[in-house]
Amino acid sequence: MASTNGTNGADVKKDFKPLGERPPLRSPYVGVPDFLSNVSNFKIIESTLREGEQFANAFFDTAKKIEIAKALDDFGVDYIELTSPAASEQSRKDCEAICKLGLKAKILTHIRCHMDDARIAVDTGVDGVDVVIGTSSFLREHSHGKDMDYIHRSAIEVIEFVKSKGIEIRFSSEDSFRSDLVDLLSIYRAVDKIGVNRVGIADTVGCAGPRQVYDLVRTLRGVVHCDIETHFHNDTGCAIANAYTALEAGATHIDTSVLGIGERNGITPLGGLMARMIVADRDYVRGKYKLEKLRDIENLVAEAVEVNIPFNNYITGFCAFTHKAGIHAKAILANPSTYEIVNPADFGLTRYVHFASRLTGWNAIKSRVDQLDLSLTDAQIKECTAKIKQLADVRSLNVDDVDSIIRQYHFNVKTGSNTPLLDAVGRNEIDAETLLKKAHANGNGNGVNEEAAKCC
Amino acid sequence: MASTNGTNGADVKKDFKPLGERPPLRSPYVGVPDFLSNVSNFKIIESTLREGEQFANAFFDTAKKIEIAKALDDFGVDYIELTSPAASEQSRKDCEAICKLGLKAKILTHIRCHMDDARIAVDTGVDGVDVVIGTSSFLREHSHGKDMDYIHRSAIEVIEFVKSKGIEIRFSSEDSFRSDLVDLLSIYRAVDKIGVNRVGIADTVGCAGPRQVYDLVRTLRGVVHCDIETHFHNDTGCAIANAYTALEAGATHIDTSVLGIGERNGITPLGGLMARMIVADRDYVRGKYKLEKLRDIENLVAEAVEVNIPFNNYITGFCAFTHKAGIHAKAILANPSTYEIVNPADFGLTRYVHFASRLTGWNAIKSRVDQLDLSLTDAQIKECTAKIKQLADVRSLNVDDVDSIIRQYHFNVKTGSNTPLLDAVGRNEIDAETLLKKAHANGNGNGVNEEAAKCC
Repeated sequence: MASTNGTNGADVKKDFKPLGERPPLRSPYVGVPDFLSNVSNFKIIESTLREGEQFANAFFDTAKKIEIAKALDDFGVDYIELTSPAASEQSRKDCEAICKLGLKAKILTHIRCHMDDARIAVDTGVDGVDVVIGTSSFLREHSHGKDMDYIHRSAIEVIEFVKSKGIEIRFSSEDSFRSDLVDLLSIYRAVDKIGVNRVGIADTVGCAGPRQVYDLVRTLRGVVHCDIETHFHNDTGCAIANAYTALEAGATHIDTSVLGIGERNGITPLGGLMARMIVADRDYVRGKYKLEKLRDIENLVAEAVEVNIPFNNYITGFCAFTHKAGIHAKAILANPSTYEIVNPADFGLTRYVHFASRLTGWNAIKSRVDQLDLSLTDAQIKECTAKIKQLADVRSLNVDDVDSIIRQYHFNVKTGSNTPLLDAVGRNEIDAETLLKKAHANGNGNGVNEEAAKCC
Repeated sequence: MASTNGTNGADVKKDFKPLGERPPLRSPYVGVPDFLSNVSNFKIIESTLREGEQFANAFFDTAKKIEIAKALDDFGVDYIELTSPAASEQSRKDCEAICKLGLKAKILTHIRCHMDDARIAVDTGVDGVDVVIGTSSFLREHSHGKDMDYIHRSAIEVIEFVKSKGIEIRFSSEDSFRSDLVDLLSIYRAVDKIGVNRVGIADTVGCAGPRQVYDLVRTLRGVVHCDIETHFHNDTGCAIANAYTALEAGATHIDTSVLGIGERNGITPLGGLMARMIVADRDYVRGKYKLEKLRDIENLVAEAVEVNIPFNNYITGFCAFTHKAGIHAKAILANPSTYEIVNPADFGLTRYVHFASRLTGWNAIKSRVDQLDLSLTDAQIKECTAKIKQLADVRSLNVDDVDSIIRQYHFNVKTGSNTPLLDAVGRNEIDAETLLKKAHANGNGNGVNEEAAKCC
């Protein structure tokens, strides 16, 4: 399981810390050394310009490809993978152009296991070539129609050729999780013996579950000495979890694309992987990647492929750090770690405590009162909260509505007046006072239930 | 590990089939009986009307709640979970209203571990009460401030009370994956002995990885006899994978919401879970849930909370069944299973083979020629494909562009004329003929590289 030319063998050891040096346990699962795991030592092969080009909406011209490549390089990805130069003449030229940029990231291109493609690829100036061939019975029958003997022979020919040019070579199967295990291990061992830099496992159809991934990667880790790259499609929602589990099992490289764009609904998203990995090793992730650039890169790519950032996107989605239920808000205000495993500040973002709903609580309103620089006692804030909750029970409130109610309540308290809170939301043409009276009549005037909106 | 009042014990056995009766193996991982796994026997607790109400944008009035509850019931979810009736007066009334609908799904409400809330809950007519209390040191310190002894005592009091009313009772910890394991197992065993229907594990902050989930659920499976419910937030991208892994470890119930809406970026989405589970057991999932209704339910909820369906949404995202790279298209046209693990027809949807890009191939164009009811030889289709790829290298093409080129090419072939393909895209004010000449001058006129746009 030692790695000769990869990063696996050397670095898992450095992760081990004697008991005295380890940080205090946060959970029963943290702090036990795992020599197989690379969650604190992984590399990203960023494939927005290859897998991402296979996204339905993607058309990247040369200038856009260069802009994306530079942004990814600045972010700190280890590799940038490009569409095969054999795909089209412009693809070849773009590949050459990006190789000439002098980026810190290594440039790869992704080709069929075929000498024609390999010859074109090595002439572009890339730092490495990713070779792939379908090994499942599905693909052997319906795609290229070749048997395993042919796959072995052509793999060896292409690998020897690329190696002779002095650049990196990866050999990957396609649809690995529907391939015969013995066939897979046999070809991986053969190419490892020739001396590939990496072998690749690909869940091409997005069928694999995390435990399958762990089993296959761990098994492979015992068969080859080289690095292990993994590529996960997200059709069944496991692309991030599978990448993480692959690292736990000894994989060294993860394929990503910005927003996960790729064939069908795509692959492991760069941002989602960052969310996952920063929880595993914040220092490693923050030390290596410019996380505060994530939002800009996502906006760049989203605009290029004409999609909106999904509302529920990892980290950068509009509500990723929004807390709504009363009890969440209360605890978040006391200590953000209660309901946040990722710190938004690590990504240059801020949290938002939602307070304009019937699920709100007096702690959230108290925080808002402070933000508005008003002064109310806790008892007054609780009364004001009760009024807000009653109104929010009847219709959707926005921040301005709640601010108006708070200000009006504050004004009444301070001046001893009894101006109806109706005025506070009068612009919405809803008779708030009547609504409030109705709510009182329903017997919900007894105190505040901010924690009753319970959640987990 | 036997289940006395749950579904686990009885049904794992029925999943076992003697070797002779098992379907042919599709991979090394399929077909080995796993007595612990419930992937073929799970229940859904649908929480759009509880967790989903905690989504930043959510405000459901009574009519909308009823509409959503009916749609979920029609879809076939086993349980519908509602916001605590203690949260607000309208929440209580809505809970009563939904209980009176006479749905097939059981109605639950979700409350704090507190007698005040329990008394209100049991009077609404619900079929069961989900009780929750924070057990992590974070929540014990910063949220409710209670110690484990207090939690034990209040849990027992509330559980005995709810049981005395003859309805279902679940006891869940909150933030389970940052709670002390011994504390957790101790309280779960205690409430199991009293006779709860389910215990719940909640990854409240979305920090858990699949292997942690497997370990904790499997451990718990050995400690309690009752059913095990699980609730996973998606902050770090593992909510679907964790749900799946929990079922593998013996969990019986999964919490979902439509589109995953909930606190922050939400929980396991109903649609995403369907995608995952149909791969595990298509017959079970199709037999139990009206999958063809998924899109309508998602649209209903998306409209109610004013979000767009994410471009990369599971199953219903616009590109979930779109195939673009040439080699994908070739194989998909021969056999959809090559690059699809989920059959779109199971959800009343169709696949789309993208052919208007430089990554296209002649198999995709041949398929389009057939759809247009035109007649061309393979050699002619290859030549036409080369022209399309050259043009697509220069700018983004849409379906109309490509159809025009195909039709013009077909016209030229059939009439012996040589009308420039320029006309085909003339409406776009781009000089296609010049572009084609330029592309030819670049030496890319030699055959078709439909498979060179390789991918996995």
